Amino acid sequence: MMNLLNEEKVFKDPVHNYIHVQDMTIWRLINTNEFQRLRRIRQLGTSYLTFHGAEHSRFSHSLGVYEITRQIISLFERNHYSDWPKEEKLLTLCAALLHDLGHGPFSHSIEEAFDMNHEDWTIRILLGNTQIHDILSEVSYGFADKVASVIARTYHKPIVVNLVSSALDADRMDYLLRDAYYTGVNYGTIDIDRIIRVLRPHQGRIVVKESGMHAVEDYLMARYQMYWQVYFHPVTRSSEIVLKLIFKRAKDLYNNGYTFEFMIAPLVSLFEDKVTVEQYLKLDEALIQTVFMQWISEKDPILSELCSRFMHRRLYKYVELEPLELEMVHEIIQVFRQCGLNPDYDVAIDSPSDLPYDVFHSGDEVSQKQILLLDRQERLMEISEVSEIVRSISGLQHGKFRLYYPEEKINAVISSFPMAIAHIFTP
Amino acid sequence: MMNLLNEEKVFKDPVHNYIHVQDMTIWRLINTNEFQRLRRIRQLGTSYLTFHGAEHSRFSHSLGVYEITRQIISLFERNHYSDWPKEEKLLTLCAALLHDLGHGPFSHSIEEAFDMNHEDWTIRILLGNTQIHDILSEVSYGFADKVASVIARTYHKPIVVNLVSSALDADRMDYLLRDAYYTGVNYGTIDIDRIIRVLRPHQGRIVVKESGMHAVEDYLMARYQMYWQVYFHPVTRSSEIVLKLIFKRAKDLYNNGYTFEFMIAPLVSLFEDKVTVEQYLKLDEALIQTVFMQWISEKDPILSELCSRFMHRRLYKYVELEPLELEMVHEIIQVFRQCGLNPDYDVAIDSPSDLPYDVFHSGDEVSQKQILLLDRQERLMEISEVSEIVRSISGLQHGKFRLYYPEEKINAVISSFPMAIAHIFTP
Amino acid sequence: MMNLLNEEKVFKDPVHNYIHVQDMTIWRLINTNEFQRLRRIRQLGTSYLTFHGAEHSRFSHSLGVYEITRQIISLFERNHYSDWPKEEKLLTLCAALLHDLGHGPFSHSIEEAFDMNHEDWTIRILLGNTQIHDILSEVSYGFADKVASVIARTYHKPIVVNLVSSALDADRMDYLLRDAYYTGVNYGTIDIDRIIRVLRPHQGRIVVKESGMHAVEDYLMARYQMYWQVYFHPVTRSSEIVLKLIFKRAKDLYNNGYTFEFMIAPLVSLFEDKVTVEQYLKLDEALIQTVFMQWISEKDPILSELCSRFMHRRLYKYVELEPLELEMVHEIIQVFRQCGLNPDYDVAIDSPSDLPYDVFHSGDEVSQKQILLLDRQERLMEISEVSEIVRSISGLQHGKFRLYYPEEKINAVISSFPMAIAHIFTP
Amino acid sequence: MMNLLNEEKVFKDPVHNYIHVQDMTIWRLINTNEFQRLRRIRQLGTSYLTFHGAEHSRFSHSLGVYEITRQIISLFERNHYSDWPKEEKLLTLCAALLHDLGHGPFSHSIEEAFDMNHEDWTIRILLGNTQIHDILSEVSYGFADKVASVIARTYHKPIVVNLVSSALDADRMDYLLRDAYYTGVNYGTIDIDRIIRVLRPHQGRIVVKESGMHAVEDYLMARYQMYWQVYFHPVTRSSEIVLKLIFKRAKDLYNNGYTFEFMIAPLVSLFEDKVTVEQYLKLDEALIQTVFMQWISEKDPILSELCSRFMHRRLYKYVELEPLELEMVHEIIQVFRQCGLNPDYDVAIDSPSDLPYDVFHSGDEVSQKQILLLDRQERLMEISEVSEIVRSISGLQHGKFRLYYPEEKINAVISSFPMAIAHIFTP
Repeated sequence: MMNLLNEEKVFKDPVHNYIHVQDMTIWRLINTNEFQRLRRIRQLGTSYLTFHGAEHSRFSHSLGVYEITRQIISLFERNHYSDWPKEEKLLTLCAALLHDLGHGPFSHSIEEAFDMNHEDWTIRILLGNTQIHDILSEVSYGFADKVASVIARTYHKPIVVNLVSSALDADRMDYLLRDAYYTGVNYGTIDIDRIIRVLRPHQGRIVVKESGMHAVEDYLMARYQMYWQVYFHPVTRSSEIVLKLIFKRAKDLYNNGYTFEFMIAPLVSLFEDKVTVEQYLKLDEALIQTVFMQWISEKDPILSELCSRFMHRRLYKYVELEPLELEMVHEIIQVFRQCGLNPDYDVAIDSPSDLPYDVFHSGDEVSQKQILLLDRQERLMEISEVSEIVRSISGLQHGKFRLYYPEEKINAVISSFPMAIAHIFTP
Repeated sequence: MMNLLNEEKVFKDPVHNYIHVQDMTIWRLINTNEFQRLRRIRQLGTSYLTFHGAEHSRFSHSLGVYEITRQIISLFERNHYSDWPKEEKLLTLCAALLHDLGHGPFSHSIEEAFDMNHEDWTIRILLGNTQIHDILSEVSYGFADKVASVIARTYHKPIVVNLVSSALDADRMDYLLRDAYYTGVNYGTIDIDRIIRVLRPHQGRIVVKESGMHAVEDYLMARYQMYWQVYFHPVTRSSEIVLKLIFKRAKDLYNNGYTFEFMIAPLVSLFEDKVTVEQYLKLDEALIQTVFMQWISEKDPILSELCSRFMHRRLYKYVELEPLELEMVHEIIQVFRQCGLNPDYDVAIDSPSDLPYDVFHSGDEVSQKQILLLDRQERLMEISEVSEIVRSISGLQHGKFRLYYPEEKINAVISSFPMAIAHIFTP
Repeated sequence: MMNLLNEEKVFKDPVHNYIHVQDMTIWRLINTNEFQRLRRIRQLGTSYLTFHGAEHSRFSHSLGVYEITRQIISLFERNHYSDWPKEEKLLTLCAALLHDLGHGPFSHSIEEAFDMNHEDWTIRILLGNTQIHDILSEVSYGFADKVASVIARTYHKPIVVNLVSSALDADRMDYLLRDAYYTGVNYGTIDIDRIIRVLRPHQGRIVVKESGMHAVEDYLMARYQMYWQVYFHPVTRSSEIVLKLIFKRAKDLYNNGYTFEFMIAPLVSLFEDKVTVEQYLKLDEALIQTVFMQWISEKDPILSELCSRFMHRRLYKYVELEPLELEMVHEIIQVFRQCGLNPDYDVAIDSPSDLPYDVFHSGDEVSQKQILLLDRQERLMEISEVSEIVRSISGLQHGKFRLYYPEEKINAVISSFPMAIAHIFTP
Repeated sequence: MMNLLNEEKVFKDPVHNYIHVQDMTIWRLINTNEFQRLRRIRQLGTSYLTFHGAEHSRFSHSLGVYEITRQIISLFERNHYSDWPKEEKLLTLCAALLHDLGHGPFSHSIEEAFDMNHEDWTIRILLGNTQIHDILSEVSYGFADKVASVIARTYHKPIVVNLVSSALDADRMDYLLRDAYYTGVNYGTIDIDRIIRVLRPHQGRIVVKESGMHAVEDYLMARYQMYWQVYFHPVTRSSEIVLKLIFKRAKDLYNNGYTFEFMIAPLVSLFEDKVTVEQYLKLDEALIQTVFMQWISEKDPILSELCSRFMHRRLYKYVELEPLELEMVHEIIQVFRQCGLNPDYDVAIDSPSDLPYDVFHSGDEVSQKQILLLDRQERLMEISEVSEIVRSISGLQHGKFRLYYPEEKINAVISSFPMAIAHIFTP
């Protein structure tokens, strides 16, 4: 099924040094319009406003996930592990490479604002009238569907799904390393070679040698730290809030018949909820930034100001709410309204939460969400049973409640606030 | 003149770990619209099409140049070097921070296509009706002009200019390190702490302790390697060629009255050569990418195809021309024309050249272009007099001549080429 | 009290890049015989037999602890924190530099074998007839005693002791980074700049800004991982066991009047428990290795074989004991004896344990062992109260029980073992 | 001929991350007494007295050379290069692993003092009564001799010799990277993956793809920088001078019948020039350091003082001699003698020189010393013909002349020196 290139090709990559491409199908997939589009979608959305180095794209991440998957399979082959289904190599590599294909611009925010889902879009692109689809279809009849089923986690061999999408998959390994590299923090610097060495294909899924327990703990802690120190950074959250408010305002204006000075085709479809695959592929972060830059000159003062805030990085400030203060939110909103502020746009409550490792589950999901250790007697143990550290981060983790607001606006009216509420905004 | 912050502020940076801001003026300059715009200008233009990690912005580079300058001055102050003019600290830091302010999108290509110059734009922004200008003017009357004169290299104290712009300046030190980091190559990894330690303020300029000669050799070699292995990479050159052809085609179409399906304000001014500062500040790489993405749908087939090539990274191929082949260029163009190709768009000759270290000069320029060593007897020597390595890369360095062309188009007609010319395209 | 050098001096260091020495006293201390001796004591004892890169010395670690302390104090001074006692700078730096002065060769093993303590020796060297003592005494009368009291943790200002010796001190920060660097593992790569930035002198001790909680978690996890993956590595434990058996055998032989073919002065004093400071300073790892190399030729077969094992790295093998097997240890020893083995030398049980963070304590010890967070309301919280992760590694951590043995010897007689016991040795 | 292990074994290595051992013979060779001895020989001799991190051993370097060779051969095999003789894999790997086996303690100094050669000793150990010899002989009759002939560069296939010992070999690649890592300088950080990718087996030798020219330039410059900034560091040269003076003094004393308070077997043989292989294997740096430590207490004041200087790092100072001063050396020596100094021990002139790339050669040597580029027309060019940079460092490079001397001794009598000579010592 593999169709080897005469000569191995490489991409220079800061994280893995070189990405090695040995198969013609992989090479052709990378050179499609749809895959090249991922260069214009940042891996970390608005995080570049907090960590100025974080401009790296989903293109580089996708290559990285492919490369890690290739290295894992290569080790499995070198050691002749009999539980690894050799015939699934190309399928696994394609799924690894393409798993993020459907991400839109500032993915998490736009998905929330327009009720979309990037995985659905990945499937639509894989199966639609695209270059990707053509190339996959040339591999064999139905191959594109198989790739889609791996990404949808419905493929009948969980071991293939495991590598691409599980609690310990190539996706997470790459993003921890890559996001750490580009932000400049060092929390994500896991020992990936060691982790790869302790993986074992075993009875239809990927498990971990018992002696690799500490390496897995280290990986889960890296993930935990990256969430709380990078992904949930309060400045990044602020930029996401401003971003969502822009989408919300623009949609409201559109629905209310507002005439935009500047509008561009794919956005209209988005507002009308009838985006085609072709249009979706034109939605990238360059377009969003350009639109916002233009909208700064819109007549609507709310839209104009929000766009200016986002583009010039004058984000919302925040205060952390103590439990008692949290109970006063309703009151705060009232006061805002009384003072002429607009609670729909001038205040937002945020509390990030994460599930670093999910131990509470049942049924089919087990094989994806649990990390299993394999001891020398070939017994399997779920890792949180033996590791107190893993146990300490299992289940949902909640961050502090934060109230975000436009500082100057609040300052202009704070003298009219009741003391107890004014106090919250003057730390 | 310095106006210290209560608390030092930091930016996390992958190259310098932290960027330290201690002065209120610097802090406010960073938060202006004009400086934030640099986030949307890539440091390496189209290089991201060759090195997928190279998405870093001029924003991060500018912070880096500021930080290196800060560290150098801090060492000068710590060691009480009497030749360093202490009162120039804030001026030097501002010039370091703002020296790249006027860069446009895909700077080198757009400057060539529209005959502009980023330094002129830096000066216009510094002196124009901008937030930057306001903040500088608050420091003292005429301060903005002083910053401009340092950047224009006309300031009356060459020692200040030296730090920001010379053969061994903070600008080059940062870009070597930063570009190496983000592309993932290691040629640029100079020992910046060591270089900083061997710099000495001496009689009105910055010189190098004799014992630092090898460190300077290493720095110049790093620069040499980065030019030939990164900045002049043939794939990057190809993308720049395609980019320039797009600008050329669009301008021609505009001048010939072509009606664009998609057009946007600042571009019109660009075509008409009457861009204001306000419009210039809206020109960023997001806008250019968005315009090109839209132009793929233009009726003009040349513009449409070039934009598609650029956005989907189907760049021009190249062959290296041997000296004899180079003499045949005129003939090649004739053949192209005869075969129905368009030599204006279907062929480009390129030969990069660089001046790693310029030893041939005279007059005022000396103090900027030469690197001087200071021996223990306080004698000064120009470095190429003592280093054979530096001598080997002094003066203009030329690369090979390459002919770039759209592969499929040539392949479609190559059977009609004379043998000698067909041979060039079939290595 | 500080006596500045004309020119800052630097040591090139892979971990901190440069170690900066600005004070004459520090410079002179480094150049004493006693401090230079630390070059001949490895930081990680026998770990080089597991991680071949781990040949780094206590000399480099001591410089590193000094450098971190210097950086912390420098930040305190730069930010004018009023709770930091400026007058204690030189004292703190000297204590940081000299805290490990008394370490002997293969410290942990030799201390156990001969019932010594490296801290006692540090004090004896500080207060004895040494170059170190002379230099400290020149600072001021009683200064050597003050340094000793900081190292002994009895100095009356806990904030000084905190920096050098606490749950979050310069010592630990350096060894995590340094041991990770030289072994090549990446578990210890903490973000030291970030940790330094969140430290605050506060009411007589060093505390941590609340926002630094995750950074401290990361540091404690790094420490945890280094213990279990490096310091307690089973191969290293094996080498320590062989080492202790050599010391034990040699001492026994000496006490029984055995005539050594090769003996050297400081060892005799060690056997007779009357080592002087002068002799102690001659005890280094070169001497121990040389003695062992010579002892391979001793007539006593036990001593000879153990030394050969250590020097040629033919260490004891191990098996992990399941709980039921652990109960059989007495029986195993019996069987060993019956089969002609020598249980005193042919078997050792080992179970490492560690106290990553000690939350159970009281009285004066509190200020050293607890890590306190300082919130924005200036309230102090002990970290394990707020961090579930810290809680998960608080208190004593136990490793598995392992039985170490000389493989060939056991294999030669294993056929005579009862089935249940033979089974343990044939996994 | 290869005898694969069931399971690949790895060593953790800071430079290559993991060293991979797949063959049983390699595994067994590493575990011999003779190979383990390399742990007690530093890779960089006395450099640890200049760069405190440089305590790494020839053991780790030897593993590194093996690993690079393994990676190169693995790439050759993966790409099915027909010019690579597959059957020589094990031979090449063994020669790579064992090429430094015969290094003695502080190799360069001891070889000079006692007129020995480490390559001769490597051959003697390979062919002597050693564990290494036994294991090699088990591979096949005459295999040990073949390994020896590769190391002696007389093996009949130059392509095998090329990989282990040429101008661009695995040995140099490893030591540049490794020495840079442990000293902490960054001059040696070559892009080894890139260099490996441009190597080609071609008509019986290893050549370089033309497009790899800049990578080779970078490698040669790294080598150049490491020589002048690390290997020839004046402090290291000073320590080597003191070391050679110790050997000289001890030998003289021995020849004159002096009775040493402390003497040890292998040293006597060394003085009498009749060292056996067995004795040689006991000569390691621990032994030399131990002997010197003991000799500090010898009655001979010259030996005692030199040993104290070496062990306590009170090395000789140096001045650089200007050309005119160099002509006065004879006079200086006279003056020293007149003032009661001993010119045999109180002065040394040193001028390091190096041959970074040797382009002047002829006959058989060609295939080892030249680096050849292979262009797309399969033409070979010697690299200095096309690279001006390589040309600039071809041929012998000389350093400055330095005069080393014991500072206090000269200071005690300098007032009696003639002005012109006193001037040299008072910069």
